[in-house]
Amino acid sequence: KFGVFIHWGVFSVPSFGSEWFWWYWQKEKREPYVKFMDTNYPPGFSYEDFGPLFTAEFFDPNQWADILKASGAKYVVLTSKHHEGFTLWGSKYSWNWNAVDVGPKRDLVSELATSVRNRTDLHFGLYHSLFEWFNPLFLEDATNAFKTRKFPTSKSLPELYEIVTKYQPEIIWSDGDGNAPDTYWNSTGFLAWLYNDSPVRDTVVTNDRWGAGSICAHGGFYTCSDRYNPGHLLPHKWENCMTIDRGSWGYRRDARLQDYLAIEDLVKQLVETVSCGGNLLMNIGPTHDGRIAVVFEERLRQVGAWLKVNGEAIYRTKPWRAQNDTVTPGVWYTFSPEEGKVNAIFLNWPISGILELGEPQAKVGETQVKLAGYKELLKWVALGEKGMVIALPQLTPQQLPCQWGWTLQMTDVN
Amino acid sequence: KFGVFIHWGVFSVPSFGSEWFWWYWQKEKREPYVKFMDTNYPPGFSYEDFGPLFTAEFFDPNQWADILKASGAKYVVLTSKHHEGFTLWGSKYSWNWNAVDVGPKRDLVSELATSVRNRTDLHFGLYHSLFEWFNPLFLEDATNAFKTRKFPTSKSLPELYEIVTKYQPEIIWSDGDGNAPDTYWNSTGFLAWLYNDSPVRDTVVTNDRWGAGSICAHGGFYTCSDRYNPGHLLPHKWENCMTIDRGSWGYRRDARLQDYLAIEDLVKQLVETVSCGGNLLMNIGPTHDGRIAVVFEERLRQVGAWLKVNGEAIYRTKPWRAQNDTVTPGVWYTFSPEEGKVNAIFLNWPISGILELGEPQAKVGETQVKLAGYKELLKWVALGEKGMVIALPQLTPQQLPCQWGWTLQMTDVN
Amino acid sequence: KFGVFIHWGVFSVPSFGSEWFWWYWQKEKREPYVKFMDTNYPPGFSYEDFGPLFTAEFFDPNQWADILKASGAKYVVLTSKHHEGFTLWGSKYSWNWNAVDVGPKRDLVSELATSVRNRTDLHFGLYHSLFEWFNPLFLEDATNAFKTRKFPTSKSLPELYEIVTKYQPEIIWSDGDGNAPDTYWNSTGFLAWLYNDSPVRDTVVTNDRWGAGSICAHGGFYTCSDRYNPGHLLPHKWENCMTIDRGSWGYRRDARLQDYLAIEDLVKQLVETVSCGGNLLMNIGPTHDGRIAVVFEERLRQVGAWLKVNGEAIYRTKPWRAQNDTVTPGVWYTFSPEEGKVNAIFLNWPISGILELGEPQAKVGETQVKLAGYKELLKWVALGEKGMVIALPQLTPQQLPCQWGWTLQMTDVN
Amino acid sequence: KFGVFIHWGVFSVPSFGSEWFWWYWQKEKREPYVKFMDTNYPPGFSYEDFGPLFTAEFFDPNQWADILKASGAKYVVLTSKHHEGFTLWGSKYSWNWNAVDVGPKRDLVSELATSVRNRTDLHFGLYHSLFEWFNPLFLEDATNAFKTRKFPTSKSLPELYEIVTKYQPEIIWSDGDGNAPDTYWNSTGFLAWLYNDSPVRDTVVTNDRWGAGSICAHGGFYTCSDRYNPGHLLPHKWENCMTIDRGSWGYRRDARLQDYLAIEDLVKQLVETVSCGGNLLMNIGPTHDGRIAVVFEERLRQVGAWLKVNGEAIYRTKPWRAQNDTVTPGVWYTFSPEEGKVNAIFLNWPISGILELGEPQAKVGETQVKLAGYKELLKWVALGEKGMVIALPQLTPQQLPCQWGWTLQMTDVN
Repeated sequence: KFGVFIHWGVFSVPSFGSEWFWWYWQKEKREPYVKFMDTNYPPGFSYEDFGPLFTAEFFDPNQWADILKASGAKYVVLTSKHHEGFTLWGSKYSWNWNAVDVGPKRDLVSELATSVRNRTDLHFGLYHSLFEWFNPLFLEDATNAFKTRKFPTSKSLPELYEIVTKYQPEIIWSDGDGNAPDTYWNSTGFLAWLYNDSPVRDTVVTNDRWGAGSICAHGGFYTCSDRYNPGHLLPHKWENCMTIDRGSWGYRRDARLQDYLAIEDLVKQLVETVSCGGNLLMNIGPTHDGRIAVVFEERLRQVGAWLKVNGEAIYRTKPWRAQNDTVTPGVWYTFSPEEGKVNAIFLNWPISGILELGEPQAKVGETQVKLAGYKELLKWVALGEKGMVIALPQLTPQQLPCQWGWTLQMTDVN
Repeated sequence: KFGVFIHWGVFSVPSFGSEWFWWYWQKEKREPYVKFMDTNYPPGFSYEDFGPLFTAEFFDPNQWADILKASGAKYVVLTSKHHEGFTLWGSKYSWNWNAVDVGPKRDLVSELATSVRNRTDLHFGLYHSLFEWFNPLFLEDATNAFKTRKFPTSKSLPELYEIVTKYQPEIIWSDGDGNAPDTYWNSTGFLAWLYNDSPVRDTVVTNDRWGAGSICAHGGFYTCSDRYNPGHLLPHKWENCMTIDRGSWGYRRDARLQDYLAIEDLVKQLVETVSCGGNLLMNIGPTHDGRIAVVFEERLRQVGAWLKVNGEAIYRTKPWRAQNDTVTPGVWYTFSPEEGKVNAIFLNWPISGILELGEPQAKVGETQVKLAGYKELLKWVALGEKGMVIALPQLTPQQLPCQWGWTLQMTDVN
Repeated sequence: KFGVFIHWGVFSVPSFGSEWFWWYWQKEKREPYVKFMDTNYPPGFSYEDFGPLFTAEFFDPNQWADILKASGAKYVVLTSKHHEGFTLWGSKYSWNWNAVDVGPKRDLVSELATSVRNRTDLHFGLYHSLFEWFNPLFLEDATNAFKTRKFPTSKSLPELYEIVTKYQPEIIWSDGDGNAPDTYWNSTGFLAWLYNDSPVRDTVVTNDRWGAGSICAHGGFYTCSDRYNPGHLLPHKWENCMTIDRGSWGYRRDARLQDYLAIEDLVKQLVETVSCGGNLLMNIGPTHDGRIAVVFEERLRQVGAWLKVNGEAIYRTKPWRAQNDTVTPGVWYTFSPEEGKVNAIFLNWPISGILELGEPQAKVGETQVKLAGYKELLKWVALGEKGMVIALPQLTPQQLPCQWGWTLQMTDVN
Repeated sequence: KFGVFIHWGVFSVPSFGSEWFWWYWQKEKREPYVKFMDTNYPPGFSYEDFGPLFTAEFFDPNQWADILKASGAKYVVLTSKHHEGFTLWGSKYSWNWNAVDVGPKRDLVSELATSVRNRTDLHFGLYHSLFEWFNPLFLEDATNAFKTRKFPTSKSLPELYEIVTKYQPEIIWSDGDGNAPDTYWNSTGFLAWLYNDSPVRDTVVTNDRWGAGSICAHGGFYTCSDRYNPGHLLPHKWENCMTIDRGSWGYRRDARLQDYLAIEDLVKQLVETVSCGGNLLMNIGPTHDGRIAVVFEERLRQVGAWLKVNGEAIYRTKPWRAQNDTVTPGVWYTFSPEEGKVNAIFLNWPISGILELGEPQAKVGETQVKLAGYKELLKWVALGEKGMVIALPQLTPQQLPCQWGWTLQMTDVN
């Protein structure tokens, strides 16, 4: 239901603007990027020259894993390779453009995998970009309208097999089809191996980005667009991958406080997504020297604190028949099948102290209503088909079980 | 009453451990510092080699000033020169070891001064270290038991005259006597000039660190020790200079969330200090590339949000006859002479909704009690010499005028 | 007959010890190399990190070509790729490990080719290493006893086709079989294409290093070992490739004057090699910033000055029936078929002024003897089968046509 | 009679154009310098930023001293500080702008002094620039028309006392008056101390550059202009300081072979200078990494080889009554008082084998003529007042005692 996405790579070195830095600078020649380079680097400085500056000297995978665990996340997805082509592991197929040969001189994938797996109930997944913006073999294939397949056969596919075999990820989060069809990528062949013969055939999950036209149409879970949050139920498993920093997936030094989503926004995203049957994959971008910036740590720990109180309404839930309430805005429902409870998560505490819900129909004498983190049962009045009215307790700031959103757990409602 | 301290310098480049990095590494040879250098730099790398890496490319003095203004601060104190001897302005007396010749290639003092002064009601001050850890002329004087005065005559004193004349600071925050007496520093001579003849003679304020034995005994306002917060009234003007990052004045990359004071702690520091008649000087450490880390921006803006509601109980107040309450812990008093109000700032909202105060004696029919940020008058009961009891309103999270501490403004109390 | 070899690559950055720097440092862990790195670079600095430091900012291909031309060389061989795998052109198959992506950001092969070809009578050849010390695909193949062929199919062979097609070199100077057989390298296939179908099929020349066992046994011209100078006639075309710096092919900063061959040694090498039917390929190592060190320029221009006088005895000659003289040591013969002249090059000017030659049999009244660069015919006496005796002119230092070796051009001798 | 000048400093890092790099680039804004910086360095890169790149990792003072000794030099003059103000020793008065704090992290003056003094008959001197191009205290004094003296009292004079006391140089080679009079520099005061009270009072020698108007008019030995070679006798001790690289005193990477004086030129300079009573101070410029480029080593060793044969005609000689010959050009005279010999050094070997000299008047039966390095006495014929005629031996190249110039040692001539 809730995972943390990590965008880390050579783009973390300039850490300016976006993880698409290379593309915007060299291909689109966007003015802020060009100016940033012209101002701060010698003429002829290339993106590749950032490689040795990706130092990761502060990278402590156990500290990262502690923060990830504290966020309440159940899975982690690391960019093993982004569109820049730089692999965070020592790929044989990316010689001298990987984190073991250049920069950190460490197998970042392996180190984080180990630390993550040493925490209970935390799964490890890998993002992998099929195409690479500037790989000359990809460009050659593209020029040939993808009738040649030099690039996938010598780079992307061998790498995919390599990471599955070496790191046995539980999620393969594929991305970047480069406008090439899945036949070019031989995605079908790879997925057949992955699900039938690979060492992770019984555990692995994948997404929907395996070739042009595949997204939101084929695959394990659907990601559709970035920051996909439809607001209603979907007939297929899906995921909302979004960023704490509104403007970038990779760390960028030019982000200010206002660019970071407030914890209220993050809780809202989580609640909406889970109510509609999706998973939330919340992204952070570590720094070139291996740190999770304190503001990210703070947000993740805030989400974790919220989930400590409200986790039952998120984890192991299913969408209920209604996603949000028809009478009171900002109320979202989930269903806990094991306990048979309907969870109504409300993001605004009503001034009157009385919450009106138009969807759940309570049964007198049976229905119980509880505020997560508060021990007393709440009083309520059934309104028949019009729902019910619940009296919230009067609590001082210190007495509130949590901030930013509260859960009513209701038994025996229709 | 409230200012922001800024520690910025070459120590912001390693930004590891402390702004005393050079001393701990080279003089005390503390193990983490030695190891950090051995691991990440070539043999023979010196502290001076950090100079060119102090780039400040993201330094936007207007953005800084906006944040400083938004914090509610009334003054700013910048380390024009710390014990490392590196001047943030292009000092004639610190050739090739200043921010104009090396690193930023900008006059950081001038730029920030201009931006700060363009904000209304924000004053600009300069920190200046008398001694320099490793300046060979200072070391020579020290070896001579300060009977020679090569260093102050060729470096520290010319520099002090230079910054006063060039930047006309409203505060000179002197530091670092190096165990030398004020006669060595000729502090008396300099202060005589400063108060009688300098261009800031009518406006300048100074502290108490002007030579061995001077601290907490002589000078404008007393700073006594770092993070000085006596908890009771002092007979002299004083200041509590403290850090948001518990462990360092300069930015350090190894600080984690738990090392930063929470906003609750900051509000508490502010309230306690002002109640006891002090000023609070809250420190942040910008990065080597000229940014105020987002966590600092967040804390400063949180303080500013709190002051927006409670500022009347802080600015232009004086200590009241009692500093904190005798019955209820966590209640601190200030007095607003212009309006004749006693302010009781309480840091915990009582579960009962009833606040008992042992100190103020209310007068029936005269005394009015108001919660800052809330329009209705509050009900209360006088207990004669035993103080009074106040009924707080019942407010939902969204209704609370602020978080972390609340002010009762009381008229006509004894 | 005479060419200049150029070893240039990332090894020119450390320019310490040898162009085998990477291997000696990382694989053999030779003490001077390990110490050099430990002393001058931070821990974890890798060979790849030298890439961005290969700047070539002083590289002026026209200036190089002028020097090469002035040396009297007829061909130039540049290391398009050494065992380090770094290509001096922007190979598609060596992304991010080539001179266009990293370091110079220039196509060094193309630039030098153009400049060389703009000089008359100067041919352009390319050295190419089949194997790469640390390429993971090569190492994998090696582990598989060369039963897999990932490396040649994805790297070495595509690169060879690429350089032939793009730069149309007149010499392919192959090297580095990595102990793998020619079947692994598919040398036969490549050479068949090269000689039958490639754009240089009518002009190209190759050497003998195309797989284990191939050297000195198969191929165009034989190179046998480095610095091969057998001292007698060989039945096959061959080449003596040798270095001006005795100790290294690549530039090394630790070479001192005594490490450089004196011009006398170079003339001797040239004379001996050509007498025995070989070509001399004399190596220089440019610097990381693109310069031919002045000592190399001096040596090359000295050779050129010598060849200006003695070139007829070198260029377009064939071995004579005798290679060196049986009576007087240090006399070497060549034969100029076009003019029917035997050339006797003597490296020591006899104190007596009389040169005895045991090999040539002069014919009274027909044979003419000339000192190259001196206009008068020389007097001589025939000794029948015992050869002849020649009277050298008495010349002051300024009158000598050249230094270091002199040529007697003899017509009508047996 | 013969010394080696060494220009080494931060200018050796860009090593482009001239040791006046800073001035030409920043003050005069000469186009090649501006372009060099714009092309190869990031915007804002300053001269000070070259400091940390002055690494000297190959600096081996014993190797240098061996080469200096082998050159036949009797003294060495090192730029302890050039106009850039960077001191090659760890001056107290140049904190953070000296070779101990920045760059080499070594006391280069001390190391070279020790090695030089460990060679017999090799003296150690120090060049020192009075003014510094960009020192703000000097600029302030200059703005004040040298009526203030901040700079000499806090920098130049303390430094001069420091180097004399610490390193006890046998020569102080002062330079760079900055158009300020000697009263500004207090040269008289310093020199009084130097000659009367300093530790080197009995041994030290100085030159003539101690203030505006002093050059070629006052001081120990006169240097007049750079590369001063008047061609006739001077009434005062003087020195010809000149450079092997025609275009620069400091090492510059853009120098080509043609920019270096040939050994013939160097011998000519030496002979002319000594004949006219001067000393020759021949300059080399080491590299930023501490090497004497091989071409400099070669030239110095060539001079040494020449002096091994002809040293008696140079060392311990005095000018003779004639400096050069009136009949044959290129013949220069010196006089060896100890042995009562007149030395005639001829730079061209006459084709005829007969050398006519117009100056020396031989005495039949007494005068002996010897060719230095050749054992037999030479035959000669006296021409009375018209001089004499000398028959040179006929020698093959290998028999010549030396190249580039030859000495006739004549006894009992008038």
